[in-house]
Amino acid sequence: MARNTQVEADRNAPPITRILAEYIVNHPSRGWSDDVEHEAHRTFMNWLGCAVGASGHEAALAALEAVSVLQPSAQATILGRSEKVDIGSAALINGITSHTFDFDDTHLKTIIHPAGPVCSALLALAEHTGASGRQLIDALIIGIDVSCRAGNMIYPDHYDRGWHITGTTGVLGSAAACARLLGMNVEQTIMALGIAASQPIGLREQFGTMTKPFHPGAAAQAGLMSALLAKSGFTSSSRAIEAPRGYAQVVSAKYDWNEITDQLGERFEISFNSYKPFACGIVIHPSIDACVQLREKGVTADNLARIDLKVHPLVLELTGKKEPTDGLQGKFSVYHGCAAGLIFGRASEDEYADDIVNRADMVDVRRKVNAIVDRGMDEASVDAVATLKDGSTVHVFVEHAIGSLQRPMTDSDLENKFHGMTDGLLGKAQTSQLISECWKLADAPDVSLVTSLSRK
Amino acid sequence: MARNTQVEADRNAPPITRILAEYIVNHPSRGWSDDVEHEAHRTFMNWLGCAVGASGHEAALAALEAVSVLQPSAQATILGRSEKVDIGSAALINGITSHTFDFDDTHLKTIIHPAGPVCSALLALAEHTGASGRQLIDALIIGIDVSCRAGNMIYPDHYDRGWHITGTTGVLGSAAACARLLGMNVEQTIMALGIAASQPIGLREQFGTMTKPFHPGAAAQAGLMSALLAKSGFTSSSRAIEAPRGYAQVVSAKYDWNEITDQLGERFEISFNSYKPFACGIVIHPSIDACVQLREKGVTADNLARIDLKVHPLVLELTGKKEPTDGLQGKFSVYHGCAAGLIFGRASEDEYADDIVNRADMVDVRRKVNAIVDRGMDEASVDAVATLKDGSTVHVFVEHAIGSLQRPMTDSDLENKFHGMTDGLLGKAQTSQLISECWKLADAPDVSLVTSLSRK
Repeated sequence: MARNTQVEADRNAPPITRILAEYIVNHPSRGWSDDVEHEAHRTFMNWLGCAVGASGHEAALAALEAVSVLQPSAQATILGRSEKVDIGSAALINGITSHTFDFDDTHLKTIIHPAGPVCSALLALAEHTGASGRQLIDALIIGIDVSCRAGNMIYPDHYDRGWHITGTTGVLGSAAACARLLGMNVEQTIMALGIAASQPIGLREQFGTMTKPFHPGAAAQAGLMSALLAKSGFTSSSRAIEAPRGYAQVVSAKYDWNEITDQLGERFEISFNSYKPFACGIVIHPSIDACVQLREKGVTADNLARIDLKVHPLVLELTGKKEPTDGLQGKFSVYHGCAAGLIFGRASEDEYADDIVNRADMVDVRRKVNAIVDRGMDEASVDAVATLKDGSTVHVFVEHAIGSLQRPMTDSDLENKFHGMTDGLLGKAQTSQLISECWKLADAPDVSLVTSLSRK
Repeated sequence: MARNTQVEADRNAPPITRILAEYIVNHPSRGWSDDVEHEAHRTFMNWLGCAVGASGHEAALAALEAVSVLQPSAQATILGRSEKVDIGSAALINGITSHTFDFDDTHLKTIIHPAGPVCSALLALAEHTGASGRQLIDALIIGIDVSCRAGNMIYPDHYDRGWHITGTTGVLGSAAACARLLGMNVEQTIMALGIAASQPIGLREQFGTMTKPFHPGAAAQAGLMSALLAKSGFTSSSRAIEAPRGYAQVVSAKYDWNEITDQLGERFEISFNSYKPFACGIVIHPSIDACVQLREKGVTADNLARIDLKVHPLVLELTGKKEPTDGLQGKFSVYHGCAAGLIFGRASEDEYADDIVNRADMVDVRRKVNAIVDRGMDEASVDAVATLKDGSTVHVFVEHAIGSLQRPMTDSDLENKFHGMTDGLLGKAQTSQLISECWKLADAPDVSLVTSLSRK
């Protein structure tokens, strides 16, 4: 893999850290369009469902066991469970569970999953401080804006180097969101961003292990603590993001300052957030969508001879696992995803159970899938040709997969997805009530209804 | 500043993470020379004195205030104070205070300050688990070996990029030490190293702010949590350090695997640890030492016209601040350090008080110091010529400063340094008893005497 080209440090960067802090502190409450406001609620709800849904996963249990060694005080809810822990640990665990199924949201330009670090820190903090729903939604939009703009600044070089950009930028988003929620001033907020900038968390090498979802959780916790430290007078560089030995220039060889400041306070990156219809990495979605469409055109496991996919290079780079042996590995296998799409017509978390991954018909179909890289193929697209045993072919071209900005999930789709993740844990009635509260969050006097309805 | 050259990822690295884990788990207790064993006690004692000494610093107070928001349980001692907090928070705060005065230890080959991340995690954990002094010393030597070997692997490219190597490698050392103390098996220890590898903490941009000492503290806490998570079954990549998108290749463009594995279990990096006689960055020490020697040769503030220093390039790169305005800035000023050496004959923490930095005679002397880069000058050396008002000159060449491996501080020097830091806080008698317990630590049934004597 190619590494950085030789470049000179930029000693004359604009005061990015201060510009961001002034925005975080001073942007007016509800200072955006109805669409942005609505997207924030979609983002929050989708995040919450994912976190509740994975609350029984072994990653959640392991994290809870580790945190319990600290004998934490019962300050904040672990979503989907009955236990409470301190707000830092709650941010960690809810951040882990929200990303455990790899079923959360995606800022498509950067492949950041923005809700995990930001929402996990915010809900725990708001539960403890009694902040209003309005304050939480304001902080959520601004926090996600900060992390995604930081991502825009350094993507793709940063990601190409091997960083898991969700955690590395999420710590800035979490700090920004918490600073906003806590009503910190500009100088304190500069320090919060500075302390956070020293903690870029996440390596792509961890994909396929529990440490992948650990990244947004740890970023949530680190960002929250950065804000608390700064509020208490802890100091950092006031140019921690842009200085020659600061965040951007250390974690990436290429950076574009303009991506941080351009239309700040006018364009909100949450507008470009998307929600996963399939419980796996976004790069596989066009392929799964294509196989769902092949199924709708009559292709079955029985009549199939082979499927030929032309895919973007990232598909095989990230999800090229030919023979996954468990659900987690299945998430990194375009072959398994396609088999699920063809056999079940979906790829929810249920289709990533270990026994499904190893089921004979699934193994059989996935081995019939051939994916080749087509450098002309857009990342959002796939070309799929199924050849049947009778020699005939069925062709599907997906330009934009379901869940993309061009074909977004509807509010109703999101509700159905939420029910699918939480009905089994909270019951259908409680889930419906929780969904209703999520849509009304901006008007809630505090977050107590949301947190109590999210508990078992 | 030059950045990385273009290099190809190494996909065929040896199994570094596993090799380290096998060493961490299986190396025999007390499996080293008497010299190594003694150095571990020197390292521990020096670290402890620094942490107690800075326990009233505003950085400690700010960190404690932030941590208190979490309402932590009273599991472990905050050194030098009466409060107790949970073990993770104790690791954080003691790691911060141990580095706050920039007066701790230095692994000279890498400029790592190894004790902070490792000892801060270990003492808190041992206090809680009741581990013996023997177990702590074993874990300390092995933990420091891991962080310094990781540093050897990626220094200097990693440091040149802008990373504060103490934190970025310290998280591995802390995880290794905690895994050893907890008696974890090889597979668990691989996971602990893996989780830690995702959290490289520290940017050089933070030098001169509280976030510099935050780095070893946060590394201590993150390493400790990584071990606890792994012990609870949390998973990570088993090649997190060496894989193409793993730690080494992401945080550095150059790496030498051999630096990790060479003579592992035979050569111990703690043998190359040194202790600061002066409360500032190691690169200034030869210059201060030279000025102390000039003072001994009769040079005074009154008879001095100018001092001309020939220094290694790093001296001005790291500590070139001409006009520091407070103690923290003074730490990054070779000029202030020289003035302290000449006027006081020392540069302890007291000489970095704000009022000393701004004292007229100190300002006057520091403005008479001219430092020029001599690319032939070794990092350990300095050439100093004082020109007196009568036109005569006094010449001092320092090949190796006091505190170096060639001119190490004696045990008695370390005890005096300890007294200087803690007598005012703990009293002279309690300090003497604490020092005595530090020397006997390996034979202690647990760490309770050390922790109780370290409290106010």
